Amino acid sequence: MTGDAMLIQEVATRDGFQIEPVFVETADKVALIDALAATGFSRIEVSSFVSPKAVPALADAAEVFAGIKRRPGTVYVALVPNPKGAERALAAKVDEVNLVASVSETHNRANMGMTPAASIEGFGRIMETLKGSGLSTNATVATAFGCPFEGDQPADKVLAQVERYLALGIEGVTLADTTGMANPRQVEALVARALALVPAGRLTLHFHNTRGLGLANVLAAYGAGARRFDAALGGLGGCPFAPGATGNICTEDLANMAEEMGIATGLDLEALIGLSRDLPRLVGHDVPGQVAKAGRPSDLHPIPQAA
Amino acid sequence: MTGDAMLIQEVATRDGFQIEPVFVETADKVALIDALAATGFSRIEVSSFVSPKAVPALADAAEVFAGIKRRPGTVYVALVPNPKGAERALAAKVDEVNLVASVSETHNRANMGMTPAASIEGFGRIMETLKGSGLSTNATVATAFGCPFEGDQPADKVLAQVERYLALGIEGVTLADTTGMANPRQVEALVARALALVPAGRLTLHFHNTRGLGLANVLAAYGAGARRFDAALGGLGGCPFAPGATGNICTEDLANMAEEMGIATGLDLEALIGLSRDLPRLVGHDVPGQVAKAGRPSDLHPIPQAA
Repeated sequence: MTGDAMLIQEVATRDGFQIEPVFVETADKVALIDALAATGFSRIEVSSFVSPKAVPALADAAEVFAGIKRRPGTVYVALVPNPKGAERALAAKVDEVNLVASVSETHNRANMGMTPAASIEGFGRIMETLKGSGLSTNATVATAFGCPFEGDQPADKVLAQVERYLALGIEGVTLADTTGMANPRQVEALVARALALVPAGRLTLHFHNTRGLGLANVLAAYGAGARRFDAALGGLGGCPFAPGATGNICTEDLANMAEEMGIATGLDLEALIGLSRDLPRLVGHDVPGQVAKAGRPSDLHPIPQAA
Repeated sequence: MTGDAMLIQEVATRDGFQIEPVFVETADKVALIDALAATGFSRIEVSSFVSPKAVPALADAAEVFAGIKRRPGTVYVALVPNPKGAERALAAKVDEVNLVASVSETHNRANMGMTPAASIEGFGRIMETLKGSGLSTNATVATAFGCPFEGDQPADKVLAQVERYLALGIEGVTLADTTGMANPRQVEALVARALALVPAGRLTLHFHNTRGLGLANVLAAYGAGARRFDAALGGLGGCPFAPGATGNICTEDLANMAEEMGIATGLDLEALIGLSRDLPRLVGHDVPGQVAKAGRPSDLHPIPQAA
């Protein structure tokens, strides 16, 4: 990362597709991921090696990894919930695994069926499994900005979990606002503290736009020194507790904000907008992204002629 | 305004309703405005004294002003395009008029049928009309952050227009991002310069969320010292050039952001959410606001029980 550039990791085919009621065909997933890579992403979270029973929408994770072209310069990431998932990820030749545990005990029990401590113990076994494989590792602190069951999560608890990740030798850390509860002031404070533990090049912020604050939170995080952000094409994704609520922050809206602010992303925004406009064909519904509807600010309109 | 509180001016019944294809019944408008006032707004832009032919949706501006209860502490504002509109506003006993001219000549010609200079000359005649009436005055610089026909508008040109407003004795100034082209870096810079001309208590920022940047722009403006913002309940409003694009920034989403950040607004957020949830009944369609769909971050969910 040079200067004040922003790195956007695309997560639509994982965090977006996982909650879609339709199964997006494997060939469509592969074509989308290849097209996304061609727009310049250095990181794409492709899929998840979870139980196909738990997440049928991503049951084809291995086939997707087998089908995609590996673009030089793009790191292809898979979410992995447990040692068995790590073995499947290894076999699928993923470049990086992303592990997840919530800081909220209630959320982790609901989501993973175990305590956060048990999840992190599992991370240790996963690290053993991956030893010598050359795979890089990232781990996510879910509900880092609040839990939909418990509410506020103390920053000290979040940062202690980050330290446990680092102690296991995990290289990258993501702070995830899993259900869109974060606000800019909180983000600024937590990012500043996290950057004392994790350098900006290895810290990712994962925001949802559930309450409309996604890009405001990016702005606050960027102001505090964060440089890596997850986003989903079209703003795919969602929140099981908020029917009708928007999902992840929208990749092309974020890339447009960055570009308008003079912050480099390395992405081809026009191409992204084209891909976003094709999403309704894949998922069967309109998507929340705004720039794909409104066009870029530089897309000027013809002057109306007097009647 | 004390400390770092934020003043939100509600504009849904003017900037929102004016582009709705349905005519919201006068009684419904009156009931909504009274209910909005009861949530604590110190300022509501109620309607517009424009030609009923040009904006049929607001043809009942005088009836609406006659019907509303005047809550002590609330300033009831009307948009006024010309001296004739100012006379109608005077007769309707509005508390404040808001005048509008675009900084973009092309936009002002398309919107008002005259040059910005001619519009501002008209402001002088309006100020004569209002002399001694006790009405307060505000004037808006439309397309201050970019014109959909011309593109970028130089900050110097925007600020020169602000100075012409002030020279006419106009008390308040609004910088409007009429079609949602602003970005946070631009906002920060323009607000900082505008505050050298207009104190924060008399400068309003009017953002649209056309490209998803509305609340990020508020955050940037607030960081630069701005304290007054227009917003529309439910995010009503829109952009004639962007079918499907969202409208004004959403009042309850903005109030939620402020409240979560510890910034006082004086508004009853729960009551606002209730009013927003009733909007589809009035306008016949879903509205873009997020918090009314997702609930507040503090609205916790029951813990799922293991099957």
